Amino acid sequence: MTDGGAERAGEVEPSLPGAELVGVRAAVIGTGLIGGSVLLRLRDAGFDVTGWDPDPTTRGYAAASGVTCAESLDEAVAGRQVVFLCGPLPTLPETLLRVAGLVGERCVLTDVGSTKGELAAFAEAHGLTDRFVPGHPMAGTDRAGLTSADPALFDGAAWVLCPAGGAGTAAFRWLADLVIRVFRAHVVPMSPTEHDAVVALSSHVPHLLARALAGAVHRAELRDAVLGLAAGSFRDGTRVAATPSERTVNMLLGNRARVLEELARVGGVLDELAAALGAADRTALVELHEEGRAARTGLFERQLTRERREFAVVGEQAEELAWLLGLGSAGGHLTECRVVDGRVAYAGERPA
Amino acid sequence: MTDGGAERAGEVEPSLPGAELVGVRAAVIGTGLIGGSVLLRLRDAGFDVTGWDPDPTTRGYAAASGVTCAESLDEAVAGRQVVFLCGPLPTLPETLLRVAGLVGERCVLTDVGSTKGELAAFAEAHGLTDRFVPGHPMAGTDRAGLTSADPALFDGAAWVLCPAGGAGTAAFRWLADLVIRVFRAHVVPMSPTEHDAVVALSSHVPHLLARALAGAVHRAELRDAVLGLAAGSFRDGTRVAATPSERTVNMLLGNRARVLEELARVGGVLDELAAALGAADRTALVELHEEGRAARTGLFERQLTRERREFAVVGEQAEELAWLLGLGSAGGHLTECRVVDGRVAYAGERPA
Repeated sequence: MTDGGAERAGEVEPSLPGAELVGVRAAVIGTGLIGGSVLLRLRDAGFDVTGWDPDPTTRGYAAASGVTCAESLDEAVAGRQVVFLCGPLPTLPETLLRVAGLVGERCVLTDVGSTKGELAAFAEAHGLTDRFVPGHPMAGTDRAGLTSADPALFDGAAWVLCPAGGAGTAAFRWLADLVIRVFRAHVVPMSPTEHDAVVALSSHVPHLLARALAGAVHRAELRDAVLGLAAGSFRDGTRVAATPSERTVNMLLGNRARVLEELARVGGVLDELAAALGAADRTALVELHEEGRAARTGLFERQLTRERREFAVVGEQAEELAWLLGLGSAGGHLTECRVVDGRVAYAGERPA
Repeated sequence: MTDGGAERAGEVEPSLPGAELVGVRAAVIGTGLIGGSVLLRLRDAGFDVTGWDPDPTTRGYAAASGVTCAESLDEAVAGRQVVFLCGPLPTLPETLLRVAGLVGERCVLTDVGSTKGELAAFAEAHGLTDRFVPGHPMAGTDRAGLTSADPALFDGAAWVLCPAGGAGTAAFRWLADLVIRVFRAHVVPMSPTEHDAVVALSSHVPHLLARALAGAVHRAELRDAVLGLAAGSFRDGTRVAATPSERTVNMLLGNRARVLEELARVGGVLDELAAALGAADRTALVELHEEGRAARTGLFERQLTRERREFAVVGEQAEELAWLLGLGSAGGHLTECRVVDGRVAYAGERPA
């Protein structure tokens, strides 16, 4: 997921993030694991960045670590050109509204929440689609807090950004360029609805499976013996069960309908496996296993082809939006986004 | 799982495995990933070891790699003091019977199969409990074959050995000492029945969950987008889904009743999670998550205390067997087993 953190403080390559981004005034609201990692990376990249966290201990730790941290949210966002909202999921709508009222019309707002549909709808209902670009970096660990933050956390990770099209296109382009160059992330353009459907299967259901397995072990009479023999499959299968519960529960509640739907889909395959095992049907078991194996090996055998597309900055937003969403749906991502001479030039990669 | 392979060929510490084991005549029947790793480690430790595999290509590869590999099973086991049976699970009963008929009465036989109940019962029915010690090293990768073998694969891994008690005690002691010193494994003494119940939950159900998740993704319309966003939880949760299907299916079929029972237990927890999510019951969701988290964090916070026990070599086998099985049930393992002056001295570790 990382390249070893070559971009830590003092080691930033001079060609990145680009002179025009150095000195950009940014704020990060909520400086836990993700927000803290965003903050450290922006600082290392030469941004004028201020953090803020509702927790005084976290603010104190930030100050002691040499990170600029304001005493109030109002102070943190005043005069900023971009604000990253990194607090817990249930707090995001209120924080978005509050920050939008404090910053200028041209300030780009984004978030890092693990579900996107509800917040995107909220932003639209409050007329914020021109300035707010819903986001979700697909990186993290089972740790929490600023003390675990890592500026290299997003290197090579997928980072979903949701383009709204129309007048919101400018904010999307600017932020996509920033995320690609500063965080070295793979920007995946995707609609909020599709994002939520995808992460239900790629992230939320895996969390439920890990908790169910760990919970069953916790209840088992043989618990101690199971922990004594816990090998790779158990360790891997329960790793995310160590994620702080509040964080996971917020994520599940924020995507409830889709998670239940995808859980039922996984439960259906599990039922087929159990039926085949109950009947000792070797042929069916092997077929079902081959199917799972195909998806898993497919994950690592993806061949990506490069592509480039240009659009007029004005007048082709509909085509641009369709191309962006198609790229994300196909499993692709952006590697470049530049606006020059009235045209926007994208480079990307998609599975062959 | 490994210490970096410090014990590869030519780098064996002179104090290991002990002069009395150097030159021991061993055979390894079936030289895939596990058997091949056993073979390489025995060779590196100074054993006189011969492998055999039914696949001519594997035999050719072994010969080309400088590993002694016989042309027939009969030739491989002739005159051996210990034979490791490492072929596929369904072949083990027949191979055990065949090898037992070819070697001397004092040759210790063991296997590395991932279920133990059926084979142990088979051995008992054929009067082989004095010579056959059922075994299961809890190590492996999602790769297969001799080309993936690694002599350091078992360093620090749990390796179950099933003591039969009575006249089989001597074979158990000798093999436990060998496995501890040569493979640096944690020898876990456990009955075949308890082993199968434990691995159903620690290994076999995790394999089913991984396959179900990977299979559901394979069938999903959003498959490409899911693979594009696959982050840690999906990668971890599906890793074992890359295991060769025949190997996994053999394992599941060899432990069918227990796997279905433990799968139902995990399914029960999953149903509770789904019901709480469906009802948007935050309190219940957090409680269920805390339970899972406790088991997961318990895995890494185990404090082990050392203990020593001695028994008379003759006349205290019942007490010895009870102590050994109790240690394994408690999540403990052996770190030493020495027979001196008519007494057997064990050292072990168990959770505090």
